[in-house]
Amino acid sequence: MSIIDCKELSRKIRLSLIDKIQKINDQYGEVPHLEIVQVGDHPSSVSYVKSIVKTCDELSVNLHISKFESDITEKELISELDKLNKEDSIHGIIIQFPLPNEFDQNKIANSISPLKDVDCVHSENLGKLFMGEPSVVPCTPKGIIRALKDSNVDFCGKEVVVVGSGRTVGKPVSQLLLIENATVTLCHLHTKSVKKHTLEADIIIAAAGKAGLISEDMVKDGVIIADAGINVIDGKVCGDVDFDNVSKKASLITPVPGGVGAMTNSMLIENLIELFEKIKLK
Amino acid sequence: MSIIDCKELSRKIRLSLIDKIQKINDQYGEVPHLEIVQVGDHPSSVSYVKSIVKTCDELSVNLHISKFESDITEKELISELDKLNKEDSIHGIIIQFPLPNEFDQNKIANSISPLKDVDCVHSENLGKLFMGEPSVVPCTPKGIIRALKDSNVDFCGKEVVVVGSGRTVGKPVSQLLLIENATVTLCHLHTKSVKKHTLEADIIIAAAGKAGLISEDMVKDGVIIADAGINVIDGKVCGDVDFDNVSKKASLITPVPGGVGAMTNSMLIENLIELFEKIKLK
Repeated sequence: MSIIDCKELSRKIRLSLIDKIQKINDQYGEVPHLEIVQVGDHPSSVSYVKSIVKTCDELSVNLHISKFESDITEKELISELDKLNKEDSIHGIIIQFPLPNEFDQNKIANSISPLKDVDCVHSENLGKLFMGEPSVVPCTPKGIIRALKDSNVDFCGKEVVVVGSGRTVGKPVSQLLLIENATVTLCHLHTKSVKKHTLEADIIIAAAGKAGLISEDMVKDGVIIADAGINVIDGKVCGDVDFDNVSKKASLITPVPGGVGAMTNSMLIENLIELFEKIKLK
Repeated sequence: MSIIDCKELSRKIRLSLIDKIQKINDQYGEVPHLEIVQVGDHPSSVSYVKSIVKTCDELSVNLHISKFESDITEKELISELDKLNKEDSIHGIIIQFPLPNEFDQNKIANSISPLKDVDCVHSENLGKLFMGEPSVVPCTPKGIIRALKDSNVDFCGKEVVVVGSGRTVGKPVSQLLLIENATVTLCHLHTKSVKKHTLEADIIIAAAGKAGLISEDMVKDGVIIADAGINVIDGKVCGDVDFDNVSKKASLITPVPGGVGAMTNSMLIENLIELFEKIKLK
């Protein structure tokens, strides 16, 4: 069994990103600028924003947080996004979801310019991903594929079972797997027997957000597993996979913490650089 | 075994559409207008356009064909589409694919206004479908789901295997099935054993375009099958399913011809009416 060291992989990617950003600065006299849009103080947003701040600092890209009180109206927020869309010095925009309940999340996502949509939440970019020709790839699914590919996983013709059909990970990663010519089964809350599927899987992507969901008896020997779940049990962070027991049967597995989550921010800055370059080449 | 009579179902749907169109005419003094955009004379376009003309005639909706020679440039075609987008009297636009090879098919698809995109080919509409909140549903996949639902098929928790991952049927129907809470496996050219999957399927959607692909030994007793394949063998139209033998094991099956294909144009006019109503309510 081999554990994918995503922290180390992410460190290597960051080194090459630092190099790229330096070259961009030499050529254009500016570095990419990321704008975070945050409404209110949802705990998961607060901790994610913290981690982005740290990453931007480490990689020397410009960052600004547009922080709004939770009493901002939908109309006001859309008007603020419009200003950010028009601001030439901003190259990528990431909105912190979930927004307060009264907001139409899709409408807000579609108010970012598709050209500055650094985490692929705009319908137009999602549609391109869905058609197998993504112009930008959502960060966490991108990190999952990158981590497995870095360990020489070949997806073509493989039986892949994705557990969890959420819009952030399960659905988009399924599309990336189809682009890689994997046979993909998407399981979710209504699936009668997840085990029946995972037992046949060459590769499992766990993205349900339920600790202990994938147990030892549910996987075959030699399985490859990427665990995108992030759960907190008794103050300890864990994934969707019962790592201690499942890892004994797996040929390759990502841990939690230190797994695919460690890739997300690196992919975010990689996307930001791609958007910067597209804007400059226009 | 029961055969779904899609021709009869389509006839019933058309009766209710005629009624709706009459009411629209009473209220607005106009009927919905469909614009077909056709470049060159691809044989499949020619025959599809013929069938749309017949449908529009039967249902008394306005139809105009914008027909261009195959030497039109991409830029010229986009400019023509732009004119159609701006023309208030046009409510829905359908482009005949495939366009000649030198065209960027996605770029052309994205040149239709999403508000007039009657077959859901624009990335923005595909993205909404992908996120489970479609604003318009592509005609053939919509017809498949409608035909099965009309026969009281409940998809929730069912094991559904889609064979064929094309952008017209396989991919979009998978998303509709996920909206219905089915567990979906998408098989394609690179799938090692399609049979392994179809043997476990409660419902099979065949959309590969390969005659005889689904044989009797590949399905379990009582399976439900929708066959969206259209193939011509020795001058005879057939689907992807070996109907004579497979139908003996199936509990419910759509034939070819007279199957889901018979639904497509009815769904097209249903979509046209929906777009008309959205435009009028804006």
